[in-house]
Amino acid sequence: MTVRQITADRMADIARGAAILGTGGGGDPYVGRLLAEQAIRRHGPVTLVDIEDVPADAVVVPVAMMGAPTVMVEKTPSGEEIHTALRTLRDALGQEITHLACIEVGGINSTIPFVAAAETGLPLVDADAMGRAFPELQMVLPTLAGVSTCPLVLTDEKGNSTLLRTIDNLWAERLARSVTVEMGCSSMTVQCVMRGAQLRDALVPGTLSLVERLGRAVREARGRRDPVTAAIEIMDGHLLFTGKVTDVSRRTSGGFARGTARLAGTGTHDGRSLELQFQNEHLLAQVDGRVVAGVPDLICVLETDSGEPVTTEALRYGFRVSVIGAPCDPRWRTAAGLDLVGPRYFGYDHDYVPVERLNAPSPR
Amino acid sequence: MTVRQITADRMADIARGAAILGTGGGGDPYVGRLLAEQAIRRHGPVTLVDIEDVPADAVVVPVAMMGAPTVMVEKTPSGEEIHTALRTLRDALGQEITHLACIEVGGINSTIPFVAAAETGLPLVDADAMGRAFPELQMVLPTLAGVSTCPLVLTDEKGNSTLLRTIDNLWAERLARSVTVEMGCSSMTVQCVMRGAQLRDALVPGTLSLVERLGRAVREARGRRDPVTAAIEIMDGHLLFTGKVTDVSRRTSGGFARGTARLAGTGTHDGRSLELQFQNEHLLAQVDGRVVAGVPDLICVLETDSGEPVTTEALRYGFRVSVIGAPCDPRWRTAAGLDLVGPRYFGYDHDYVPVERLNAPSPR
Repeated sequence: MTVRQITADRMADIARGAAILGTGGGGDPYVGRLLAEQAIRRHGPVTLVDIEDVPADAVVVPVAMMGAPTVMVEKTPSGEEIHTALRTLRDALGQEITHLACIEVGGINSTIPFVAAAETGLPLVDADAMGRAFPELQMVLPTLAGVSTCPLVLTDEKGNSTLLRTIDNLWAERLARSVTVEMGCSSMTVQCVMRGAQLRDALVPGTLSLVERLGRAVREARGRRDPVTAAIEIMDGHLLFTGKVTDVSRRTSGGFARGTARLAGTGTHDGRSLELQFQNEHLLAQVDGRVVAGVPDLICVLETDSGEPVTTEALRYGFRVSVIGAPCDPRWRTAAGLDLVGPRYFGYDHDYVPVERLNAPSPR
Repeated sequence: MTVRQITADRMADIARGAAILGTGGGGDPYVGRLLAEQAIRRHGPVTLVDIEDVPADAVVVPVAMMGAPTVMVEKTPSGEEIHTALRTLRDALGQEITHLACIEVGGINSTIPFVAAAETGLPLVDADAMGRAFPELQMVLPTLAGVSTCPLVLTDEKGNSTLLRTIDNLWAERLARSVTVEMGCSSMTVQCVMRGAQLRDALVPGTLSLVERLGRAVREARGRRDPVTAAIEIMDGHLLFTGKVTDVSRRTSGGFARGTARLAGTGTHDGRSLELQFQNEHLLAQVDGRVVAGVPDLICVLETDSGEPVTTEALRYGFRVSVIGAPCDPRWRTAAGLDLVGPRYFGYDHDYVPVERLNAPSPR
């Protein structure tokens, strides 16, 4: 049985690694780290448990923020949202919540579960529901496993709360999104209640350990070896591009941060250009018009020198970044997975090709 | 103790009278009448009780539709919404609901409580929470009496439900409106839970009897005397204008039916013109640029020949109509009432003047 106590000093690596796998979304790692450090210092370490150590009848609840990351950076939680949300959900379930979980990987959405776990004393499951971040609520492996997003509770920093019960997970996304927009474009949410027995099908195991390992490897590589290469090794990824940001077009619409970024190549990519399209998360990367990675595979943007993750809302003109493509959880590559999060769902008129195939060494 | 059994054959008069006092909003009386007649024929008569006969500890719940009346006409309830809403509210309260009530006067919103009462067998309180219809949730006498709009439940014909708990009644309006828009611009709602002891402060007594009397008087006047005059007598109203609709500009925006209608005078109003501004309900009536009636007083549009009410979504070019102004409940004329529903709240740059003062006979 693997039970670990996570202390505040480990949150910086966790937040960094999570923001890398967050593919540009999931929140700012600096804000996420501070929130978790503060909560753990105040309430004590968080107990992290493996999926196989969660009892079959456990009531497991993912905690996350919803909304536009551009807004979350400036509108941090009051501290009461999590408690109101969990209390409302417990009353709706008529059952005590036994474990917390992480819905997606990201600078805030992998650390908010630590905040909630520290404040409630509940154990946190070492896993997440995507193996990355995605912009919409129904885009989780639990949807593929037949788990309902609802009952879902949304709360805001003012003290408002909303309990949704919808006919399917897409309607949960629609109604929760409109409430989140009205709440000021960000909210705290608990959703996707699972039994312990469902976790193996519904979650990606070991995510929180993985992001800590990734965050640590990048930090330790600095000044010794290339941090981007260190990240690529752990992610089983591909270096898609190295360059300089020349253009970012970003707007907050429909409760999302949407936009496009353009990079001019440097080094081995000199003379070439890369375009990134995002909706909270990076969806598509094209080099000189050719797709080099796309959803559901991961597209991760790192500062070239430090390997520090760059979220979509932090992308700025002049940043020197490296772009990594990495394979997603294999369940996303099934027909049902691609229906939910494949390129066509996001409006792109092409079929999914795995990132390792798009970036295979060309035969001589 | 006054307890009456309301049968289906009385719904036509009730719906007609309610649509007159609904000041253009509150839903189409034909649709409302059919829904109530069908429910009463299937389940039996509705028990109507006076406010003074409701026990002090009764749990009284108003039932209504929310959204744009333009949409409600085409998107009628599935029949399950009311039950889902009441069940969700009961679970949230942890208390059985003992009485139903009417939140506003209107062709649908005065008949939906009859549908709910017929289907559940609960008694219906002879009253409403406005003495007219208003477009936004917080615009009810219970707000003035310190009653919270939440817990509020919204349901739709697809089977989705939302339970809101907000910090004040204005936030209830904001979040409920955005959910209603996403649900397709109309929803079923239960809200503003009251104890029996609060009804005297929070409701207008006798509204449902009044609208039946009004609807009957208009019908009985046809072919014998002027139906519009019959209505004016019961409403203690003023004939503001008689004319022909020449122009209607209507749009559904932000979940409301908004617009303007222009009338060219006929008979004693020949050569003059009237402009009506509405947001679900009529807000302001001006004759040749001079205000002749405005919120919170009632502005009611009736077909001149038949006295049949014309809702804002039914107004059409060529309709020959009479416009009545009538005094609102005195609680709306207090400073707190005018803050909530006075002309300035709706964006008009003038103070409220009572309709009887605006239409006083000029001194000779």
